[in-house]
Amino acid sequence: MNEFEIIARDSESRARAGLLQTAHGDIETPVFMPVGTLGTVKSLTPEELLEAGARIILGNTYHLYLRPGCEVIGQFSGLHRFMNWKRAILTDSGGFQVFSLAKLSKTSEDGVTFQSHIDGSAHLLTPEKSVEIQLCLGSDIIMCLDQCIPYPAERGAVREALALTTRWAGRCKEFRDRHTRGKDLLFGIVQGGMFNDLRSESVAELAEIGFHGYAVGGLSVGEPKDVMLEIAAATLPQLPGEKPKYIMGVGTPADLVNLVDLGADMFDCVMPTRNARNGQLFTGCGAINISNACFKQDIEPVESGCRCYTCRNYSKAYLRHLFLAKELLAYRLNTIHNVHFYLDLMKRMRAAICAGEFETFKKNFFSDQI
Amino acid sequence: MNEFEIIARDSESRARAGLLQTAHGDIETPVFMPVGTLGTVKSLTPEELLEAGARIILGNTYHLYLRPGCEVIGQFSGLHRFMNWKRAILTDSGGFQVFSLAKLSKTSEDGVTFQSHIDGSAHLLTPEKSVEIQLCLGSDIIMCLDQCIPYPAERGAVREALALTTRWAGRCKEFRDRHTRGKDLLFGIVQGGMFNDLRSESVAELAEIGFHGYAVGGLSVGEPKDVMLEIAAATLPQLPGEKPKYIMGVGTPADLVNLVDLGADMFDCVMPTRNARNGQLFTGCGAINISNACFKQDIEPVESGCRCYTCRNYSKAYLRHLFLAKELLAYRLNTIHNVHFYLDLMKRMRAAICAGEFETFKKNFFSDQI
Repeated sequence: MNEFEIIARDSESRARAGLLQTAHGDIETPVFMPVGTLGTVKSLTPEELLEAGARIILGNTYHLYLRPGCEVIGQFSGLHRFMNWKRAILTDSGGFQVFSLAKLSKTSEDGVTFQSHIDGSAHLLTPEKSVEIQLCLGSDIIMCLDQCIPYPAERGAVREALALTTRWAGRCKEFRDRHTRGKDLLFGIVQGGMFNDLRSESVAELAEIGFHGYAVGGLSVGEPKDVMLEIAAATLPQLPGEKPKYIMGVGTPADLVNLVDLGADMFDCVMPTRNARNGQLFTGCGAINISNACFKQDIEPVESGCRCYTCRNYSKAYLRHLFLAKELLAYRLNTIHNVHFYLDLMKRMRAAICAGEFETFKKNFFSDQI
Repeated sequence: MNEFEIIARDSESRARAGLLQTAHGDIETPVFMPVGTLGTVKSLTPEELLEAGARIILGNTYHLYLRPGCEVIGQFSGLHRFMNWKRAILTDSGGFQVFSLAKLSKTSEDGVTFQSHIDGSAHLLTPEKSVEIQLCLGSDIIMCLDQCIPYPAERGAVREALALTTRWAGRCKEFRDRHTRGKDLLFGIVQGGMFNDLRSESVAELAEIGFHGYAVGGLSVGEPKDVMLEIAAATLPQLPGEKPKYIMGVGTPADLVNLVDLGADMFDCVMPTRNARNGQLFTGCGAINISNACFKQDIEPVESGCRCYTCRNYSKAYLRHLFLAKELLAYRLNTIHNVHFYLDLMKRMRAAICAGEFETFKKNFFSDQI
């Protein structure tokens, strides 16, 4: 059985619309996954996520493993019931946070040892352990543990990291196949830094093992935008065409349009949620900063015609007031708008692909940006 | 026309159930008004307030005058449209905050000069100015400017403050009658500190002027609980019986039951909202602190049988996790529960009064407290 079906393909680009079946509902692609680091997409309820159009969110294995831990989430048979989210959840492997947040991380063939950024306690994350935690979280899409290295990095170090990532991917697959209850999907993660030939090597090795989907990791780690797009452009077409293709940790609305154009199906990023909490709101003409004095008496919504709860009910003047007063409602109303904006953008791209109008959509999108 | 109607009286106490008509809907009394200091009941939307049963909220004139100011709120013809709250709003006079929050406040016959606690700017708040701001806010119930003095205070100072409060009340009435659009109500505030005879003096002077309702101010300012109840017990019966009686800034659930027993109709307090943000949740058996380790794996809601959104959907373990992780959703889910608890308590008291069962209600309420 193939859990991923391609519904439509754009004739002038690599863009495609698909349907991904999970144990917690079908997901229309291209899809954006709001980030719910600690068992909550910051400030929102599950109902608000659903209303904004979310059908899958991302949970962070590293964070949830440390707080509240599998002991607690296990009481609820996983994250879904713990946080009251009934749709799909993708969990990352924990690798990215171990390398970026934890202290004193040390990689060996076995796995990576690290100290918690919260209390300094020592832990060992192996490929098997990562999958075990994700199974305990009840994840619908499990990510393989990969070795993330900083940008820029030497070719030799990148090659070693990708070879280790491949070996770890094999161990993840084996462990998952032994312990799955059969409803989760396992995705491999392509590494290879900014070297196209190493990316190709990584793709080939992962495809040989065989996964339900393939992610491109190690992008959006500080490299220039054109390098990111170039690597994505070279890597995406090499991934198995009948499987979902996921670009991790990206990006701006323009990035999403460009990457869908290049054939990507799935995305996650903290940008809509984090920027909302910093007062940056997305609109079809670009982003605005709600604290700007020009909005002081502005009785209009953030984006006229926007159907989100925030725009249907509140003015820019009110949002500015709440934000300047550091009121909790500010973060929430801003987040509702930004998440809605991102999910609506994906929905509109999908509709355009299905209607054979993606080129026009793209042209309009970029010409609307101020 | 009388905007306040008494529906039922308890035969064994002074408790009563009433109906207060305002320009933004009828209010069943006894009623609790959640505090919405800056044009938002912290963390909640108007829909959540309505679902919790709120029909009137309190706005703080001092805070709203400084931020965002009448210039902004005037653009929306008042607070209702600015914050998207369609039911009633009571605004305080600003006096309490001027005396407690502002810097260098100085009282004269004319009014009180003060410096903003935000930017140090100088302002003069007169009785007329206070009413003018409240009219600009579109308040349904306007409070007279009163002079609040600290506890404890000498009899001489209390007497002077109450005399000034009476003169200011007269000026408020005059200004309001000249400028009202006829739909707002004006309440006088009884002062007199912890001296029963001065309270009586204040009541008589205010009743002589004549208001739509009467508040007891200057309670819950640091005095012992029994003194507060004694002053309330002595003052409440002296207030005009056919008008709503409002105890300002009080209190715990037990205070509310005791004060309804003594004939009070209206209350406001930051306790349910502020304590929620500090992790304290109210239940029929008393309050719990959600950060307590005993809740780590507790899959039960805060209060079984509670119909609030939080209890219908989340466990104590999840709320504890969110609170310890300082997640924004924690403050919101906790606030929803506490506001629901307070409003439900008022609803149950009203039903008991109407059914002639208030004594039984009271007895059960206190015997349930651990």
